[in-house]
Amino acid sequence: MPTIVVEVMPKAELLDPAGKAVAGALRREGGHPFSDVRIGKRFELTVDGEVTDAVLEQAQKLAHEMLSNSVIEDVVKVTVA
Amino acid sequence: MPTIVVEVMPKAELLDPAGKAVAGALRREGGHPFSDVRIGKRFELTVDGEVTDAVLEQAQKLAHEMLSNSVIEDVVKVTVA
Repeated sequence: MPTIVVEVMPKAELLDPAGKAVAGALRREGGHPFSDVRIGKRFELTVDGEVTDAVLEQAQKLAHEMLSNSVIEDVVKVTVA
Repeated sequence: MPTIVVEVMPKAELLDPAGKAVAGALRREGGHPFSDVRIGKRFELTVDGEVTDAVLEQAQKLAHEMLSNSVIEDVVKVTVA
């Protein structure tokens, strides 16, 4: 069955303690060209039937209304896997 | 500065309580063609300088060694944003 992927990230201006912890571990380990790490969520929605434009729109709506908190998060992408 | 995105999902055979909770809420609400929901993580790595093949390889290594737990998770994708 087809899958729709919804990607959600914390807003840029928001502190991301978990991301900072990973970035700090990388700095201590050294030898990495990664100066910052941010951590968000990735949802896989299994679709019953075909992915039509209407279904993709429903996924968009769901992404904003149920799968993310618009105060602290941004929906980055909604794509068919 | 360029960004590399690492996407990690729980292994398929693993129970995903949070995903099940969202899927249940969708069923109760009704009118959704989504029969299952799974929730994973999305990392954004900020790269100091250019993204070369070597840097992408470092991100792959990091994805498997630090950003995911190979016992319960799979690295789904490592891409340049």
